Amino acid sequence: MRVGIVGYGNLGRGVESAVMQAGDMELVAVFTRRDPESVKIEADAPVLPMEKMDEMTDDIDVMILCGGSATDLPEMTPQIAAKFNVVDSFDTHANIPEHLAAVDAAAKAAGNVGVISVGWDPGLFSVARLYANAALPNGNDYTFWGRGVSQGHSDAIRRIDGVADARQYTVPVEEAVERVRAGENPELSTREKHTRECFVVAEEGADLAAIEEAIVTMPNYFADYDTTVTFITQEEMDSEHAGLPHGGSVLRSGVTGQQGEFNNTVEFSLNLDSNPFFTGSVLTAIARAALRLNQAGESGGRTIFDIPPCYLCETPREELIAHML
Amino acid sequence: MRVGIVGYGNLGRGVESAVMQAGDMELVAVFTRRDPESVKIEADAPVLPMEKMDEMTDDIDVMILCGGSATDLPEMTPQIAAKFNVVDSFDTHANIPEHLAAVDAAAKAAGNVGVISVGWDPGLFSVARLYANAALPNGNDYTFWGRGVSQGHSDAIRRIDGVADARQYTVPVEEAVERVRAGENPELSTREKHTRECFVVAEEGADLAAIEEAIVTMPNYFADYDTTVTFITQEEMDSEHAGLPHGGSVLRSGVTGQQGEFNNTVEFSLNLDSNPFFTGSVLTAIARAALRLNQAGESGGRTIFDIPPCYLCETPREELIAHML
Repeated sequence: MRVGIVGYGNLGRGVESAVMQAGDMELVAVFTRRDPESVKIEADAPVLPMEKMDEMTDDIDVMILCGGSATDLPEMTPQIAAKFNVVDSFDTHANIPEHLAAVDAAAKAAGNVGVISVGWDPGLFSVARLYANAALPNGNDYTFWGRGVSQGHSDAIRRIDGVADARQYTVPVEEAVERVRAGENPELSTREKHTRECFVVAEEGADLAAIEEAIVTMPNYFADYDTTVTFITQEEMDSEHAGLPHGGSVLRSGVTGQQGEFNNTVEFSLNLDSNPFFTGSVLTAIARAALRLNQAGESGGRTIFDIPPCYLCETPREELIAHML
Repeated sequence: MRVGIVGYGNLGRGVESAVMQAGDMELVAVFTRRDPESVKIEADAPVLPMEKMDEMTDDIDVMILCGGSATDLPEMTPQIAAKFNVVDSFDTHANIPEHLAAVDAAAKAAGNVGVISVGWDPGLFSVARLYANAALPNGNDYTFWGRGVSQGHSDAIRRIDGVADARQYTVPVEEAVERVRAGENPELSTREKHTRECFVVAEEGADLAAIEEAIVTMPNYFADYDTTVTFITQEEMDSEHAGLPHGGSVLRSGVTGQQGEFNNTVEFSLNLDSNPFFTGSVLTAIARAALRLNQAGESGGRTIFDIPPCYLCETPREELIAHML
């Protein structure tokens, strides 16, 4: 499989690493909007400007798109799906149907497959929710995120006056997770599910009390949560908060039996040292599936819900059935 | 969807309950090898002898087979797949490829779909292993079963002289699970992964020491485990050990990054009050998928690895994508 990567931030580096380690894949090129000369990559492959892509439709089987969901992917995914099989990590949940429709139209017209919204949420968490719902139609879903770095919340803190740097961790409330695991089916408010831990480097002479107040009262981001703010030095930030760990749990609690007399809990959990490298690895597996779907004659927009799981692995179906089933 | 159930033991009752609660399914009949008059079911549907099945190929869309893996299913699934779409819970892992080949030949010749080895292991545990392997190709798999009743082990104890009744619980060693969760990638012996707890009702005057010795030294079943034997009364057995709870965890611990520098853990866990009712519920979801595959023009033998997840739910694909992805 000949693979291209579009965009080379943290996620692009994660995809590159996964592609380089896949025995059935070759990284053909990385495409960037920056000056290609300024982008150093790990793989022995060229870094090319975006417009070069159009000349390479015969050289690349699938493009893995590593742009952002806010502005990049809504335009980029349909455009590139008109030329290549594509996979993206579009994660604005509310806009997924609209994005899928756009990708479906472009991909179908070109005879390509475009798989959207891949990673762990949306992605593996979604498919865990689906299997749990299929097995337990009568029940309740719960999703807990963390402990992990939320880049959106970290960015929101950085925009406050007097803040030099910030890192925000989303932390599930362990007591709430335990109540769900115990089958209590609790109704949980936003505040009862997660807390938010903020580590902030203030500019010299900044008003720390004002920064803390601005954080904990920020609507949507922090006001509905129990939020703690800890001021640290830039050195502490660099040494202790450089990573991008994340994870979380999807739980479903449901009943079986004629009178709903049997309780059951299904749980899927992730604990990730690096959010972008794990997401990149999932995108790479889905890229394999996108090509296989296309080779099987399919075209159009797809999600992880549409993909037979055996398409995801390098290992052939017969071996998976013999050894993993 | 018009559904038939073949076999009415614990699993058949679990399937019946799930089918009755599915908004898109109708239970047409239960088929049994026993005297149909002697079988009382919960649903308002006829209980029929096996040979009646052949007259009903126009009345039933999919048959859910609830026989045993040792002798029933190897014969029954290919036979019935020659007449109907079928789903079974064949769980003799070593014989899955052979069973799949037999079902594939029969189903393909008849234009039907036959999905084998569905439940939670094989089944949801298998698919959890597959997604985890796809996301983390470089890692180790671990499966822990329990705490739950093993019927095979309970039966093995009941065959010992002087035993009136027995229930065996398989129990994961919590310390081993914690080591895997912590990313230690331990090599674990059989004894380090599970313990076995046996509750035994002895016949009057039986030699308890001899029974205990016979259990803990039994090859394959108990000799390789730390096994405890507790003698109880039949009343205690009936009041405290009547249920068939089970569950367990599939874990994969693996690395991402150019130098494998990031550790990751994926975990899928089940905690089930009733093993047969949960298994029956999974079989019912897969029966829906079997019919949809067949309606999409497919035929032959399939496993859960071959099924696009969105085929499993009563909820239409578009709604799943809008609300669950």
